[in-house]
Amino acid sequence: MGTSAAQPTSERALTCICLEKDGEVLMFDAGEGAQISYLKCGLGWNKKMKIFVTHLHGDHCIGILGLLQTMTLQNRIEPVEIYGPEGIEEFIASNIKILNFGLSFPVIISTVSEGLVLEDKTYFIHACEAEHFIPAFSYLFQEKDKPGKFYPEKAKALDIPEGELWHKLQMDHEVKVGNKTIRPSDVMGEKRSGKKIGISGDTRPTKKLEDFFKNCNYLIFDSTFSNELKEKAIETCHSTAKEAAMLAKNANVENLILTHFSARYKNEGALLAEAKTIHSSVIAAKDLLEIEIK
Amino acid sequence: MGTSAAQPTSERALTCICLEKDGEVLMFDAGEGAQISYLKCGLGWNKKMKIFVTHLHGDHCIGILGLLQTMTLQNRIEPVEIYGPEGIEEFIASNIKILNFGLSFPVIISTVSEGLVLEDKTYFIHACEAEHFIPAFSYLFQEKDKPGKFYPEKAKALDIPEGELWHKLQMDHEVKVGNKTIRPSDVMGEKRSGKKIGISGDTRPTKKLEDFFKNCNYLIFDSTFSNELKEKAIETCHSTAKEAAMLAKNANVENLILTHFSARYKNEGALLAEAKTIHSSVIAAKDLLEIEIK
Repeated sequence: MGTSAAQPTSERALTCICLEKDGEVLMFDAGEGAQISYLKCGLGWNKKMKIFVTHLHGDHCIGILGLLQTMTLQNRIEPVEIYGPEGIEEFIASNIKILNFGLSFPVIISTVSEGLVLEDKTYFIHACEAEHFIPAFSYLFQEKDKPGKFYPEKAKALDIPEGELWHKLQMDHEVKVGNKTIRPSDVMGEKRSGKKIGISGDTRPTKKLEDFFKNCNYLIFDSTFSNELKEKAIETCHSTAKEAAMLAKNANVENLILTHFSARYKNEGALLAEAKTIHSSVIAAKDLLEIEIK
Repeated sequence: MGTSAAQPTSERALTCICLEKDGEVLMFDAGEGAQISYLKCGLGWNKKMKIFVTHLHGDHCIGILGLLQTMTLQNRIEPVEIYGPEGIEEFIASNIKILNFGLSFPVIISTVSEGLVLEDKTYFIHACEAEHFIPAFSYLFQEKDKPGKFYPEKAKALDIPEGELWHKLQMDHEVKVGNKTIRPSDVMGEKRSGKKIGISGDTRPTKKLEDFFKNCNYLIFDSTFSNELKEKAIETCHSTAKEAAMLAKNANVENLILTHFSARYKNEGALLAEAKTIHSSVIAAKDLLEIEIK
């Protein structure tokens, strides 16, 4: 939704990343103006939603306030869950009070620590400490493995009557037909691995994050500077595009998405080029870029 | 800078009005995204600046946070003065603390009450209670009267030597030349009245505000709804375009500027039309509209 570091430019909004899955929106950070990008995307104001904040710098979380306010104006009733580092509750709760929000829906705020943040029916969210000025987390969306493809012709060949027994097999349970025990693998293809998607937030590249993001299908990583400005990246606790690519390569990441570009870069060409010398599948994010993950 | 009520649209940003005078920016409200509009205007990050907040709803003040943060990134050193209703200090101070701003310049926060807010060398700012859900103020910028035009030929004809005595006359002081007392009016034209510019913020139209805005050269007034939705305006403590025009007419306002349009209006045509049936000089504000006031 937004790809600019620290301050917005006339082309790039502040950091905001949304993952939509089964009608739910998982938002990672919401810089000022997130509601405008969200509006442009047309994702809907009453969707199931969780917001994960990487760290409490304004350019990563101020946008939550406007989102909550506009959702109230849109008569949202669905709760919003917000996760973030120590202080997230004070930030949200004190602004709701001072700014007289009068919310139309519940806001449930949780302070994150390293490890498993939550388990949903179809996915996990994990957090790992990042390396920034202030306490900061990277997040990992880990989809649960999905059952293999169901082959009706195999079920029919085994004389399994259509209906409840088919459903049980699809849900990964054995069934009995007469004396025969049918295993799910008799009528279904191999289990399909769940997708892994990593979001770094603001950070230096670290060995710990390399392990955390191991085998991600997609990794969205801090790419504030080009490698020429590596000193600046160290000084400001960010990463260069080259460093992002090296981490992704070492972590066996399938696809790397660079984001969080310094306002000094009018376009991302140089950053993309240096990352591509290291990693074979790199995209430079753009505001409102959509990627379908299958 | 922004003309949308309550929530932004893809065409209109949230409320923000800037008055630039002698290199100083007086900002009235700063909704989310104000820094983006401010950036587009190119007014400069290190200008002398005062911000006046009408009321503590998020769509009128959340933008201050991003402005302060970006000014720090731009190494601003000039102080920023912020004025607003009770709670303004808590809002700014608590966010500066929670969001780890590390400001590069002083922020001076003052709680406003009705009456004179401040006197500058060349202008006054007054506040008047508005009628909204929560404590809210309208503001009046009142430029001090300016001395009349100086006529050098008249000064020469009266044998007044150029230099200090001319300067004193221009500064509205009498001077003595030999035995003669020369009055400023002997060498200068009539005093020029200072401009009066009113900003309503969110409010119902009231008799009190009609008096407060008497004889304004420009009045920027809440025009959230068209008169068809007057009931809605009453219910939500806003004004219709027609009501804004009636107040402006009764207050003998020279030019009325409508703003703070509900997101339901794709364009302001209907609002402008109904106001024009009442008042002869009406403009519908647009984002980034600039008006030169002479």
